[in-house]
Amino acid sequence: MGKIDREKRLKERAALEAVKMIRDGAIVGLGTGSTAALAIAELGRRVREDGLEIIGIPTSYQAAMIARANGIVTRTLDDVSKIDIAVDGADEVDSEKNLIKGGGGAHTREKVVDGLADQFVVVVDDSKLVERLGEKFPVPVEVLPFAIGPVMKKLRGMGGNPALRMGVKKDGPVISDQGNMLIDVRFPEIEDPAALERNLNDIPGVVENGLFVGLAHVILIGTMDQRGGAIIRRID
Amino acid sequence: MGKIDREKRLKERAALEAVKMIRDGAIVGLGTGSTAALAIAELGRRVREDGLEIIGIPTSYQAAMIARANGIVTRTLDDVSKIDIAVDGADEVDSEKNLIKGGGGAHTREKVVDGLADQFVVVVDDSKLVERLGEKFPVPVEVLPFAIGPVMKKLRGMGGNPALRMGVKKDGPVISDQGNMLIDVRFPEIEDPAALERNLNDIPGVVENGLFVGLAHVILIGTMDQRGGAIIRRID
Repeated sequence: MGKIDREKRLKERAALEAVKMIRDGAIVGLGTGSTAALAIAELGRRVREDGLEIIGIPTSYQAAMIARANGIVTRTLDDVSKIDIAVDGADEVDSEKNLIKGGGGAHTREKVVDGLADQFVVVVDDSKLVERLGEKFPVPVEVLPFAIGPVMKKLRGMGGNPALRMGVKKDGPVISDQGNMLIDVRFPEIEDPAALERNLNDIPGVVENGLFVGLAHVILIGTMDQRGGAIIRRID
Repeated sequence: MGKIDREKRLKERAALEAVKMIRDGAIVGLGTGSTAALAIAELGRRVREDGLEIIGIPTSYQAAMIARANGIVTRTLDDVSKIDIAVDGADEVDSEKNLIKGGGGAHTREKVVDGLADQFVVVVDDSKLVERLGEKFPVPVEVLPFAIGPVMKKLRGMGGNPALRMGVKKDGPVISDQGNMLIDVRFPEIEDPAALERNLNDIPGVVENGLFVGLAHVILIGTMDQRGGAIIRRID
């Protein structure tokens, strides 16, 4: 089995496990990214085939589109008073259930929605597990376009190596669903993710960063047993 | 010489030629895309080395960033009363000087700025020349996100084959510098580009489309002579 196929299968395993946790009548935060997309598709299948009645709160245009295509009723945060459960992916997860998110540029809305959920369930394949956050992945920071210059400078002053995320299917910088820009920041070492999360958000012009410290309740990790079967490792 | 190298050399040839047309004191529309970027860089060189004094009006975040990096003073449309000359690229050009633009997603601001210029100069390599617009390239349409559904339907009703442009460095749809989405529409044949340009903009929810009919004054086409030298073909 190729690396891509393996990853896909493990993501799917985690996504299916998360959707089992969703009860009838729930208000569900719908995450962004390839693993969250698998969860939304499975949730739609349960709505169509099992008559599950839920309301989805999308974290991005992508989540809203996939939900709609799968027959899931969506609402905004203006329409609901609480979120029962949110299911979302991550780019990195440590053993303390802290995350780096935002490779897909959706971390701002994700943090709002996931952070409001009574239960925030993270679904990943085992390649996302790290000893220490920032090992493989830079920290995405969403920034107001007019503040890019001073924010870049501040990030360098904090010891980071910031890079403006550039588009492939558009000229110039990638623009987020909110109309902002994204800076990916590499830090030599992230010793205190909670402090870094606060310090990044403290920079004027920063909308939100991709460190999610102390927010996740459950991590569901798709991994493989010795016989090559997809299994779940769960961190509670 | 490889295809990429050839294209790059011809783009550069056209960009240099266009910048020769820019006079001291001019207010200059700065286009978006790889060829426009070469023109902005050359303009910056003339500012630094020849003491040329101009003011740039960028058509995108990309143009503004490249201008700034090259020491060009930029202003917005609020600050100037006219634009003397605009230099911009195109995805397709026909013999009537009509264009398809927007492969980089910047056609809305480009049409505003380029359309205000006393002289709108288009710089392309010879691969952009077509018999009929739409031969190779779909027509980009910038759309308000909340109107995507009905606009897609209208475009199909007009005989088009619309596709929402999806991101590579972000999850979900590409977002324009203005915070909108982009639909690339293939039409079996574009017989009347002027009528199509008006009809597309007439759809509620459409911000602007990438057909530029009757706007360009001069087309500068980088091409090759029989001995392999880069030369300019000019359409006035």
